[in-house]
Formats: sequence, C-alpha cells, structure tokens
Amino acid sequence: MIQVGVNGYGTIGKRVADAVAAQPDMKLIGVAKTRPNFEAEAAVRKGYPLYAAIPDRADQFRDAGIDLAGEVEDMVMTADVVVDTTPSGIGADNCDLYERYDTPAILQGGEDADVADVSFNARANYDLARDDVDVARVVSCNTTGLSRLLAPLVEAYGVEKARVTLVRRGGDPGQTSRGPINDILPDPVTVPSHHGPDVNTIIPDVDIDTLGVKVPATLMHLHSVNVTLEAEPSAAEVRELLGAESRLFLVPEETGIDGTGKLKEFAMDTGRPRGDLWENCIWEDSISMEGDDLYLFQSIHQESDVIPENIDAIRALLDWEDRETSMRITDETLGVGLESLFDGRRQRVVPRSDG
Amino acid sequence: MIQVGVNGYGTIGKRVADAVAAQPDMKLIGVAKTRPNFEAEAAVRKGYPLYAAIPDRADQFRDAGIDLAGEVEDMVMTADVVVDTTPSGIGADNCDLYERYDTPAILQGGEDADVADVSFNARANYDLARDDVDVARVVSCNTTGLSRLLAPLVEAYGVEKARVTLVRRGGDPGQTSRGPINDILPDPVTVPSHHGPDVNTIIPDVDIDTLGVKVPATLMHLHSVNVTLEAEPSAAEVRELLGAESRLFLVPEETGIDGTGKLKEFAMDTGRPRGDLWENCIWEDSISMEGDDLYLFQSIHQESDVIPENIDAIRALLDWEDRETSMRITDETLGVGLESLFDGRRQRVVPRSDG
Repeated sequence: MIQVGVNGYGTIGKRVADAVAAQPDMKLIGVAKTRPNFEAEAAVRKGYPLYAAIPDRADQFRDAGIDLAGEVEDMVMTADVVVDTTPSGIGADNCDLYERYDTPAILQGGEDADVADVSFNARANYDLARDDVDVARVVSCNTTGLSRLLAPLVEAYGVEKARVTLVRRGGDPGQTSRGPINDILPDPVTVPSHHGPDVNTIIPDVDIDTLGVKVPATLMHLHSVNVTLEAEPSAAEVRELLGAESRLFLVPEETGIDGTGKLKEFAMDTGRPRGDLWENCIWEDSISMEGDDLYLFQSIHQESDVIPENIDAIRALLDWEDRETSMRITDETLGVGLESLFDGRRQRVVPRSDG
Repeated sequence: MIQVGVNGYGTIGKRVADAVAAQPDMKLIGVAKTRPNFEAEAAVRKGYPLYAAIPDRADQFRDAGIDLAGEVEDMVMTADVVVDTTPSGIGADNCDLYERYDTPAILQGGEDADVADVSFNARANYDLARDDVDVARVVSCNTTGLSRLLAPLVEAYGVEKARVTLVRRGGDPGQTSRGPINDILPDPVTVPSHHGPDVNTIIPDVDIDTLGVKVPATLMHLHSVNVTLEAEPSAAEVRELLGAESRLFLVPEETGIDGTGKLKEFAMDTGRPRGDLWENCIWEDSISMEGDDLYLFQSIHQESDVIPENIDAIRALLDWEDRETSMRITDETLGVGLESLFDGRRQRVVPRSDG
C-alpha cells in the first residue's frame, strides 16, 4: 500500500483525498489544512487524520473544537508521497520540506513548470514520471483537457497546428469575490495565452496557439478547438477515435445537453460526488472536418478533471504500475467513463459515415 | 434630399432614424411601429411622424394618447427609400408592399440573403448596391464586423483561411427574457455557424470557418479571430493597416480598457448617443503574428455597428454618392472614428517594430 499525504484541503485537495481513499493500493495517511473552516470539519467527519499546515495555527483548530493529528511535517515524514494542492506558488515553497524528508511530491498546474522535474498527464506522458523523478507537476485543468485531446490526434493523424480559444469561467462556484459580471474579457489580451506553452511541457512538438477569454460563468470552461491535421479523416472516424478514450466523453446529441449547466445537472443525476466531471466533455455533434481542419467544442470541469491525473501521477512517481493498469484502476474505482451509460447507443453511432 | 422612411422602431430602427435625421442629404419622413410603447412615445417627442405598422392597431395608439401620421402604406408611398428594421422574417414579408409602390428597400441581416438582390457592407462591396438594385440587405452585426476586418486584410495581404470563434452576448440589455445565466453554450453546436457563409455573401472568395458560443453577457459580442495570411507582415504593419480604417477602432493598451464593460463606459463618457460603438473595437495589444497566422480580439456592439452601414446603403441604393464620399459624410455626421481621440498617441505607435 502506498502511504499518501495530501497537503492542502481546498477545491482540489478534498477531491484528491477522496480519490486516494478509494484506491485499493493506497492509504490516505492524512490531510493538511491552514484554517479550521467547513472543509476541515468535513475532513475530520470523514475520519481523515488532519494536520495543521501552519504550526502557529494549531490553537485555531483547538479553539474550533477540531482535533489535530499533528503538524504537516509529521505527515510528510510518514508519507511515501505527498500530493501538494496548496495555492499557486506555495507548492514551490513547500518543496524544501519534501526534499528534507526525501518524500516524492506531486504539485499542481498553478506552479511554474521548472519547479518540477516533469510535467504530467497520464494519457500523454505517464512513463516520463517513472524515471527517477522526485517532483512531478500535474498540469492545470485546461492543459490536461488539451493534452488528453491532442495525444490521440497526434498519434492517429499527426497535428500540423492547433488553434484553441478558451472561453474561461470567471471563478469557481465558491469563489464569491471573482468576476466578471455581464462582461466578456480578452484574458490575457496578448496572444498566446499561457496554455499553449503549457501544453508543450506535455507534448513538446505540437504547434499550438491559444487565446483566452473570460466570461461570467462558474461551472466549467469551454474550448473552441481547431486542429489542422496532417491527414483528412472523416468526422465519423475522429468521433470513433476520441470515443474510444476513457477520459473523453462524447456528449450525445439526443441527451439534449446544450451547455455546461445541463452537463453538471447530468453529472449530479448520475450520482457523481460533488457533481464532478473528470472527463473532457466533447459535444459529439460539434466534431466536424472542413478539409484537413478539425473543429470541436469541449467543456472542462476546472475543479475535477485533474483528479484522476493526480492518482495516476502517484503510481507513476513511485513506478508502481504501468500506464494502462494505473489508468484502468483509477477509472474503475472512481467511475470515470460516462460513455458506458450510452452503450446501446454507441452501436448505432460508430457506423455513421458523414464527413 | 433623399426622403427616408424607417419601418420598425426598435433597437436598430430608432438608431437608424436618428442617424438619418443627422444627414445633410436626407430627410426622415417618418417611422412605423407596431405598438405604442415607450419607444413610440420617444419618436413623437423627437418630432418624428409616426405611422401604424399594423392598420388594425391604430386604436391602441389613440388609446395611449399617441398621435399617428397615418399607416405604414402612406409612408412607403411617399418615401424614396425605406429602411426595414422589423424583426427577422417580417422584412421579407414586407417586400411585397415595397414592390407595390416601387420603393427601394433596405433589409437587415436577420433576413435570408436570397430575399435581397444584394448583401451590403460599405467597406467591402458598396458599388454592388449602386447597380440597378431594388432590395439590399445590410448584413448582421457580426458579419459586418468580420467584413470590415477582412476586406483590408484581403486587399493588403491575401487571406488563406480565417477561423473565428464568436463569443456572443446572450441578449441585448433590454431583452429581459433571454439567457443564459451562468452558462457557456456552444451555439450552434454544429460547425460552422451561419456567420462564415454570411461573410461569403459580402466577400465571396474568402475561406472562413466560424464557431459560435453563447455566454451570460449583454453588452457586446467578442470575436477571437485567426486569419492565416498569404503574406507575413509584422504585427506593427497589421496594426498600421487596421488603424487607418475609420470603422476599426484600435483600443490602446494605456487606456486600461480591459473588456466590453469598460468599452461601453468609455463610449458613454465620450457622449456617444446611447453609448453606441459603431466601430469594431480591436484590442491593439492582441494583434499578433505567429508565422503567417494573425490573431486578434475584437468586440462588436450588436445594437449599433450596422447603423453607419444602413446610412451608406441608402446612398448606394439610390446611386447618390460614391463609397468614399458616403462613408466620409456618414462618419463625420455621426462622429465615427474614436482614433481621433488618441491622435497624439498614434504618432508614437506607428513606428513600433515588434513582430
């Protein structure tokens, strides 16, 4: 069993902790948190040993009636690996601590790429993290979504150039002070946004330009994707290729799901924890070919698509399983793969021959 | 003097009426409206002769205490030209009426292209409407914005392919029942959206694919534009080319205008009627070249960018002035051309040599 500690227990940390606890080959030895808020109480209620991320604040937890198992250093000492889900920049600062106890660590996509030995996406470059790596960085939600999409396209057809406009949610549902309200902002106004270069930390050779736009929505991002391929498959062939990927969910037209609101509603109806969507959600009907230009829309759930990647990163970093095995275990234990809900339908879709 | 009637007095109609009234070579002989709402009262207050667009409803105007000058047929009979700004589909129905009185008519972009003899954009194809045309169609706000941008690029560099994601406002500020709230929708989910083919009614040969996304905003659309050029100018050269177009406003970085909200605020501060932005608003700092790929962001004010085009369409349809003269008169009388507010700055910008 891999002994896993989770440092940070916010949007990503609480999801990683639940996912770790669900794995047959992992044991969650604890989570570390800076403040005794509602999330800290929930951790204790779930029976997760809680560590104070900042030593001076142990009193605050005591005052709030929350029992601590110790300080974050105790957790790092005991763990085989730490998943760091602290806010951007703090993860880099924490690397000294992990190094002191020779504990391998997984950082999140908010950290600079060069803080880690390798940037990680399970589908695209799992094996790189198996090779004598101390610190891996699971790339951001958007970069994860783009890497998952581009990897099979590069393998099957070759990519001449990708051009993506990311229509980004302004903030998460819990981020009450974020904007915009009733506005559409180029963000950043300069081109390219950081997402393209970030994809190159995962797939170095792909030529990709990205543009970012921020809008008044909180549920998910939406990518307007163009990929000029080195071949001219039919749209049906591309649908079949992408539909075979476990972490790409092709949203069937007949479901009537027309946007991120209904996607989240659908996820909650299926019983997904917190309504999470771990998969890229690609509108099947949007997959179009115009000559060698592929177009599609995909939505990315910023709070959860990196969760399976963090789990796989743990196994890769400890060289515990190969890629296929790790992704299969992760997907089965979490329940990744919404395609299976539409298995009867799939039979009808595959032979479609429109271009 | 050209005697102009305006049929329909909503978002576009009231703006066209004001613009016609401001022209030295035109006389507004009246406006026609279906209902005696706040806009009808405003028309009367401005001294615009008001006609009942639907004969049976004359009573409603009387009951509301609003004086009518007659019925729409009277207006069409007297006019040299009618600008039809009725809702989509009604304009096509009205063509019988215009034909009966042999009155040339200008329809809006919501009508099908084949209802009109020619689709119109002043910058791109003014002269086509001068040649024995009875019905012209001023293309929609988005198609107008794209045509204005593409025309100079086609002329200066040649366009290999344009790919545009239109991040569309959900509704106008006054459309209280439109959505979405807190959502991002592919709209339409299929590719291409109608905008690309619509641009081809203006610039037939340009290869363009467009994708539409709808978001919870009301102020303006935002286009994420990619144009693969047949040449490789520097970004500075493209800025200079676009900056010389009177209906393209390059938003200077140092103004701190970061989105559609500040653009509208800026327009109101300058005293623009209704805060209208007749120009494409192109973020100057977004204009970038990556090889032969041009990228930029532009915002389009859906309520007003077609207004100068309607005025020019009147002159073109009656073969009254040539393109340069008409656009100059229109721009001067309305006050089109925000560049002039930054003239001192322009001198500094042009020599910039970054690529």
